[in-house]
Amino acid sequence: MAQNDSLLSEYLQTAVDAANKAGELIRKGFYQTKNVEHKGQVDLVTETDKACEELIFNHFRERYPSHKFIGEETTAACGSSELTDDPTWIVDPLDGTTNFVHGFPFVCISIGLTIGKVPTVGVVYNPIMNELFTGIRGKGAFLNGNPIKVSSQSELVKSLLAAEVGIKRDKLTVDLTTGRINSLLFKVRSLRMSGSCALNLCGIACGRIDLFYEHGFGGPWDVAGGALIVQEAGGLVYDPSGKDFDITSQRVAASNPLLKDAFLEVLGQFE
Amino acid sequence: MAQNDSLLSEYLQTAVDAANKAGELIRKGFYQTKNVEHKGQVDLVTETDKACEELIFNHFRERYPSHKFIGEETTAACGSSELTDDPTWIVDPLDGTTNFVHGFPFVCISIGLTIGKVPTVGVVYNPIMNELFTGIRGKGAFLNGNPIKVSSQSELVKSLLAAEVGIKRDKLTVDLTTGRINSLLFKVRSLRMSGSCALNLCGIACGRIDLFYEHGFGGPWDVAGGALIVQEAGGLVYDPSGKDFDITSQRVAASNPLLKDAFLEVLGQFE
Repeated sequence: MAQNDSLLSEYLQTAVDAANKAGELIRKGFYQTKNVEHKGQVDLVTETDKACEELIFNHFRERYPSHKFIGEETTAACGSSELTDDPTWIVDPLDGTTNFVHGFPFVCISIGLTIGKVPTVGVVYNPIMNELFTGIRGKGAFLNGNPIKVSSQSELVKSLLAAEVGIKRDKLTVDLTTGRINSLLFKVRSLRMSGSCALNLCGIACGRIDLFYEHGFGGPWDVAGGALIVQEAGGLVYDPSGKDFDITSQRVAASNPLLKDAFLEVLGQFE
Repeated sequence: MAQNDSLLSEYLQTAVDAANKAGELIRKGFYQTKNVEHKGQVDLVTETDKACEELIFNHFRERYPSHKFIGEETTAACGSSELTDDPTWIVDPLDGTTNFVHGFPFVCISIGLTIGKVPTVGVVYNPIMNELFTGIRGKGAFLNGNPIKVSSQSELVKSLLAAEVGIKRDKLTVDLTTGRINSLLFKVRSLRMSGSCALNLCGIACGRIDLFYEHGFGGPWDVAGGALIVQEAGGLVYDPSGKDFDITSQRVAASNPLLKDAFLEVLGQFE
């Protein structure tokens, strides 16, 4: 067991090193004029995004040649990647690409390691605000090395909610998105939209927001790191319908345990 | 004129000094458990808020005993303050109080000076992210001493919008708020909500967001500093109806000049 702990600590340090290296690229690009490709009307991929994924995967491949990899850019280029029981690094090299393109400071690298499909190590790093969120299963969650925990809020009416409007702009999706927001505004204190799913999860983990949900984000890379960090900070990650969280479903909700039932009661109206 | 320039530079430096001193208090409180009073369901005043206003007003009174003052806390306690032609410091000692209470990093001190009712000096300082926005009428706008300008975006569909849900939770207001968001989502790239009116204006000024509107914010202290900074960065500040901006109206919209007409076309549906 001690050997296992030491191995997981090594995995975490490897992920932190990769995030720091990628963070340098992101910082550099953030303050420059950027060359932008369009994947769709509102989804943007930058050169930095691709360079960071290559850097991070090479970093892991050199050290752990037998491990598997799932990444946003690789998956977009090569089709979907199946999650197996092998140790698998699930990486979003640049979460918050729209923010990156516009210079809005909520951008991050998200790295999660699953072993036997169980999220085991998580790293989320915002190189602009210099915030490094880390977690190892059973060992707690940390922000820049200091332990963090979810808020102790028990009332919706005093809760700060994070949500996103996503990238789909068909009438059905937009009406559902604003309908949910309309219902929630009568129940919660206020609403924040940061534009980064991984950083919203970390906001739950450190108690700076109390409630978060998102439908239709990009893929497991947006949540693999952050979900473990929420759990290790004493929080819950679940499907907005109340079912168990499925990392591949592109649906997530998170809160402390005290708020879950009341939050699901509002979200459930839209399921 | 050179003498006037030198006087305005001195006013700016005095405001920056006051903001730095208040910033220390805000930083200290931000990382502590806070004692919170309730002004209403979702509006919060903290001890830090009050201490910062006292500190800032004392700082100005010592140096400029003939100047007038309008502040959020003073006005709440003593009724409305009339804006006269005298040099008047309009101060929000802590914009983003909900963020402050929850530990969400968009908080700032906002200071604006009007002379002959004309906004002349602006300082907005976020002590958590260490971002100091400054401007003097006719002399440009700056972020941490570096010149800033509004974005050059000319298409709504590529624009990042900032908006807020405010503090009113009656059905009419909430429906109007989400109705506006619904309409705008079909037109713009994406939406951010930071919880600070003054920082949203500064986001326009440095080009990190392209469009911003808010109805029903607290008072002139939320916009007095930021509006000048937007104008000095080459941007426009106007009423969401398209009329001239009125600092006392609790209504504001801002963008670069290229986006104004298209933005007003969408906002105008709700006037």
